[in-house]
This record gives sequence, structure tokens and C-alpha cells, in this order.
Amino acid sequence: MGIDRKRLERSIDDLGRIGETPRGGLTRLALTDEDKRGRDWIVARMREAGLRVTVDQMGNIFGERPGAEPLPPVLMGSHVDSVPTGGKYDGQLGVLCGLETIRTLNDQRIRTRHPVALVIFTNEEGARFQPAMIASGVMAGKIALEDAYGARDTDGVRLVDALERIGYLGSEPCVARPFRAYLELHIEQGPILEEEGLAVGVVEGIVAISWSRLSLHGVQDHAGPTPMRIRHDALVAAAEVIAGVRGIAREIGGNLVATVGHLTVRPNIVNAIPGAATLSIDLRDPRTETLDRALPLVDRVVRDACAREGVRYELEHYWRVPFTPFAAEVVAAVDRAARASGARSRRILSGAGHDAQYMAAIGPTGMIFVPSRGGRSHCEEEFTPMDDIEYGANTLLLAALELAGRM
Amino acid sequence: MGIDRKRLERSIDDLGRIGETPRGGLTRLALTDEDKRGRDWIVARMREAGLRVTVDQMGNIFGERPGAEPLPPVLMGSHVDSVPTGGKYDGQLGVLCGLETIRTLNDQRIRTRHPVALVIFTNEEGARFQPAMIASGVMAGKIALEDAYGARDTDGVRLVDALERIGYLGSEPCVARPFRAYLELHIEQGPILEEEGLAVGVVEGIVAISWSRLSLHGVQDHAGPTPMRIRHDALVAAAEVIAGVRGIAREIGGNLVATVGHLTVRPNIVNAIPGAATLSIDLRDPRTETLDRALPLVDRVVRDACAREGVRYELEHYWRVPFTPFAAEVVAAVDRAARASGARSRRILSGAGHDAQYMAAIGPTGMIFVPSRGGRSHCEEEFTPMDDIEYGANTLLLAALELAGRM
Repeated sequence: MGIDRKRLERSIDDLGRIGETPRGGLTRLALTDEDKRGRDWIVARMREAGLRVTVDQMGNIFGERPGAEPLPPVLMGSHVDSVPTGGKYDGQLGVLCGLETIRTLNDQRIRTRHPVALVIFTNEEGARFQPAMIASGVMAGKIALEDAYGARDTDGVRLVDALERIGYLGSEPCVARPFRAYLELHIEQGPILEEEGLAVGVVEGIVAISWSRLSLHGVQDHAGPTPMRIRHDALVAAAEVIAGVRGIAREIGGNLVATVGHLTVRPNIVNAIPGAATLSIDLRDPRTETLDRALPLVDRVVRDACAREGVRYELEHYWRVPFTPFAAEVVAAVDRAARASGARSRRILSGAGHDAQYMAAIGPTGMIFVPSRGGRSHCEEEFTPMDDIEYGANTLLLAALELAGRM
Repeated sequence: MGIDRKRLERSIDDLGRIGETPRGGLTRLALTDEDKRGRDWIVARMREAGLRVTVDQMGNIFGERPGAEPLPPVLMGSHVDSVPTGGKYDGQLGVLCGLETIRTLNDQRIRTRHPVALVIFTNEEGARFQPAMIASGVMAGKIALEDAYGARDTDGVRLVDALERIGYLGSEPCVARPFRAYLELHIEQGPILEEEGLAVGVVEGIVAISWSRLSLHGVQDHAGPTPMRIRHDALVAAAEVIAGVRGIAREIGGNLVATVGHLTVRPNIVNAIPGAATLSIDLRDPRTETLDRALPLVDRVVRDACAREGVRYELEHYWRVPFTPFAAEVVAAVDRAARASGARSRRILSGAGHDAQYMAAIGPTGMIFVPSRGGRSHCEEEFTPMDDIEYGANTLLLAALELAGRM
């Protein structure tokens, strides 16, 4: 038995047109009109598949296929929001493979002991509202509902108002409920599976992640008549920090990755010395201890850069998750399912955060990776071959079926 | 004889309220609603002073006080647009001292051989539309009218449409016409006059300026699962360029100033490796030859930074003005006027571009500087003491009177 490849391909095409960019990528930021249209499309497909659809206080969407017994469900899910000029695979592929799994169970009139449910999480990317994975974070009790509601986008719009505006401010409490397993299929977003010619990654856990925010306060002045000797240039300090963060990754080596992805400059015009700048620092490593080593080096890089330029600063390490191991029984089920599907596979770690990270805190969780061409994601060039997607979807189907218990 | 200090102070207060920021600075970007209100205010004052007001195709405003003979006018002027969160002195002070000069001539019923006229130039700052000094550039025949009309702000609005929207798309041709002299009073924007305890700078010329634009094309990717070894981070390359530009100023030394004031990053989110970045490079020196030395060093810094990170780039040195000497006879008239006003003064160079730079190409031109507290400008803290402003305004009055020929 297996999923319907043509039908899955059609779903990917259909949902991929909502928020499509001219160059074939996707811009579907959380709780925008595009996100609403994407949600409406998937909810309509869930209803067609006979699922009972509910929406919770964080706008998370659930669609349940009943089981034969009153037991906790096997959840399959991911997200449908994207980064700006992102791709058509990150997030939406996991949702659509979950939908395809349920459609296949329906086609084959398969009954399961546990219910099987599809879940779509709100604002996974963190591109519009921070932090990322905010809705699974609330569900896991790691983020207070009121804090999530008060998160603002760069235009000052609150998350709760954006939820209400698009009609996805649901009434179900967003709290941890028992589940048999949570399974998330996702693109790898790294180069390993492609480099090794594999179709499926059996994910054993998610690397430790740390996010920091740096605000630099220099002295805004005219770029012409202000001699170099009296300057306090916030952007020059920022540049030293960016180079220093790169240097930390080089110094520690191994699997540590370090990125400055966000930078704003004020007043940001050709002929003014930048008076202020803010930037983000993203550090990740499979070992939590490596971040314990790296963060003091960040502190030092920032302190030295700001001292040299005579710039004041605030540095905040505001978000941190340790290495997240997945449940051994779920990883083993995914491993068996991958083999049974005929996929060439390996055990792998996730370098990216996923809703599975928070779900792992409240129940047995695992993930299935499929390859990313060139290791690329969060860009319009994101691509996964359909052959690999089929192997991945069948792995999801077989793992869900084993965990839900075929009658 | 002298200007009316109280009246001038009141004008500064009145105009300074249009576009005032909560912290006492000014945001009055060119051709915005605030700029329109500022223009309307000054036009009303010009009409009250009996001036014949005309507006040209670039939105430059002229108000002429007739002379006794059919001779070219003495022009006094500056601009009323500001940078974002700029100050209340840059630009508007020169316009208001020119207005005060005309009011004083009226009060004293002084007749001059040459007409005396006030001029307000459009978009001097270059903060909204580039290049800076675009309207005097068109008048001097250095920028084509259609190029200026097609300049777009960051929202894609064309300058010509912005002019029309606020009702300042005039019909007078924007072309060079003979003038007896152009006099511009302006804040120094540097620390010299204050450091030396002087009230007036007799400006001998404007330093050479070069503006460059750098576009960096890396590879946008996810900040988590993308190993350091395969990254091509546009922001890391940008940071090296920023540090390198600072290094060029250090290496060449002397009076060279080098600034990266503008930087944009794409997609500019915490968890994506920046795929693209653009930045500006502003170089200035009293000697044109110093820029000839510095620009090849910029080329090398950019080439090396991009080669190291594996990032493609385009570097364009798109705007360049050589050292601009002012007319000896005008400088001498300003010098005599400063002494006659009782001001402590010195000869000085301007480190900033001004409309006087283009005006110097088409007629006898000079400038009068007054001090900037702490050398600061293009910021809310911009400040010039009223005592110095009075000396400066009287210098302008006496210089204009000498050049226009008192009857």
C-alpha cells in the first residue's frame, strides 16, 4: 500500500500557488491574507476528507479522523506560513503529506485504534512574529498565551489582532493534551541527504539553538564635516560584531553554525553616520555545551567592538533551547517505516527548529526528512524531487499506521 | 544697521514646528506633507515681504525684491527639507536669514542697484530622492531634468509625481540664469568654529565628494542546517567592506572621511543567511587627488571581501564632484562683512555638499558658516547659539548689500 503520488503532487501545486512569487518561490507570512487563503484551502480539503476541524486560541488548526477506541491521537503536522521570498516545500510539504496520509487511509477504508489527526501550527517561521514556533510553544506551556498575543510585527500589529482579522482566533484552549505520537515530515534544509544520495532522514533530535539581540547606540552625525577622530559609528561596531560572530564559528569549529541574519541601521542614509543599529545572532550546535562555550565569546566580541568604537550597547540572549532528543520508540517506528517504504535512509539531526521541538516536551515525537536540493531552503530555489517526496510520504503513512495501530 | 534678532528667532521657532519630532528635532523629508507645509509657510512670508514669488519645474521657489537697475540679482538661499530625525538648523536657517535680510532691507527702505532674491532649493538632502542637491544640479545643467523627474524614493514614488502632489511642480524653466552672486548661510556641521570660539566661517570652497553603491549577491539559505563551509553570506561580505572602508580612512589619514551610511539586507530575518545586501560609500577630502587614491583602495577592499566569501557584486562610483573653490570676490565680500558685523571669524572649507556647489559652476558663489554645537548635525541635537546666528545673519545682510550695491 502507498500514497497517491499524482494526487499529492497536485496538492503541492495547488497550495503552492497561494502566495507564489514571480520566480516560483513563496511569500506567505503568518496571518496575512495569503496565509488566510492557504489556511482556507487546507481546511476545505480537510473537511472533504471527512475530518472534524477545530481551531484553537492560537489559530492552530486540527482535523481528526476518529479511531476505533477512545485513545489519544497520532498527530501529523507542520505549518503553512513561509519566510519572505521563501520556497514551496518548507512547512507546506509536511501538511500535505499528512493530508495525503489521511486520504490514503480513507481510500483503503483502514481503521486504526487511535485517531489520526492533522495539525497546522501558526507562525512557525518567526519571520513576522517572534519568537518562531510561537504556537507550539504556547501549547507546550513554554510561552504564555498573553505574551504570544502581544507579539508585534514590524508594523506594530499584535498577533492576536492579526489572528482575529483573518478569522482564525479559535475558541479551543491552546494547551497540552495527550497524544500517541507527533510526526512531522519536513525538508532537511541542509545538504546531507542529497550529498549521500538518500531519500529519507530518520530524525533523532533537534540541535540546541540560541538567539540574541544586540542594540548599538552610537552618535548620529553628518558624514561630511565630522572628522574620523570624533566618530562613534554604530554600523562600524556592528560590522566588527558580524565578523566576530563568523570568527567564533571558525574558532570553535565542528558543527557550530553562527549567523547574523537581521540588521537595521538608523537613519540609514548615504550621508549620515549611523547613530543606531540592531542585529540578531543565531547560534546552533548538536551539543548544548557548545553554546555554553560560544555565548561568552559573543559577549566578548560585542564588548570589544563597542569599546573600540565608543558605542553603547544592550545585548540580550533572549531565546534558548537545549538539544532536543526525539522519543526512541517514535524514531524506531520511523526507521522501520522508511525501510518498509523502500527508501534509502539514514539517522540524522535537525539543524533547524520545528514545532516538533516543543511537541517533544509534551509527548512522543519524531520527524521525517526529505532532501533539499543544494541544501537550500528559505529561498525561492527550495526544491525536493517528487521521487523523494513519495518515499517520505509513504514513510509517514507507514509510521502513523504502526503508531495508531491498524485494526 | 543690523537684522532684527527677535523676529529672526521667532521665524526659526515657527518654521521649526512644521515636522518637529517629539525630541525637538525635525523630520521634513523632501516633497512630503511636512515639506509642503514648510514651503507654504515660507511662501506666505515672502509674499508678506512684497516679493514676487515664482516656482520652477524642479519646485525651486524664488522671491525677488526689485533692484534699481535691470541687472542680475544677488541670490540668497538654502533648503527647507531635512534628513529623518534631523535638526532645525540645517537648511532652514539659511532660508530664514535670507528672509530676515530682505525684511531688514524693507524696514530700512534700502534700495539696491541689483535685485535681491531669496531661493529655496528642492530635495537638497538626498534623504528621500537621490542624488542630493538634485534641483540645483538641474539648474546648473549637471543633471538632466528627465533624470531628476524619474528619481524614485524607496516606495517607488517618482520625484515629478511627488512635486505635483504637493502643488510645487512649477512652470518656470529650471535653467542657469545670470546672477550677481549666490550667498548661502549654513551651519558648519563640523566642530571647528565651536572649538576655536568663533561665530562665523568664511567658506572658501567645498571638499571633493564621491558616492559609491555596492550590491552584494550571496546565497540565501536557512541559518540552521546550512554548514559554515557552504555559506556565501552577503552580510559577512558587507561587514568586511564596512571595516575596510574605515581602514582606508585610517591608512590615508589627513582630512579624508569615509562613511558607510546606508545598508539594506535581504531577507533580513533572524534565521536566514542574508542572500543580498546593498550599501553606500561616501568619501570626502579637500583634495580631489586624495579621492583618486582612495577609490582604487575601495575597489580592492570590495574585491577581496567578496572573493573570500564567494559573493558576486556590482560596485558603482556613481557620483563625484571635485573640490569646488568659491569666487574670490564673493569670499572677500563675506570676509569684509563678517568683520564689519563684529564677528570673530576665520576662513574655512565645507565638508558637506550644498546647493552652493552647483551654483558655483554657473556664477559667483560664496557661503557663510555658523557653529554647530559639538560639531553635530543631521541629528535632533543640532544646535547653534542665537548670538552666533545673529552674527551670521548680519554677515549675510552686509555681504548681500555690498554685492547688490546700496544706492
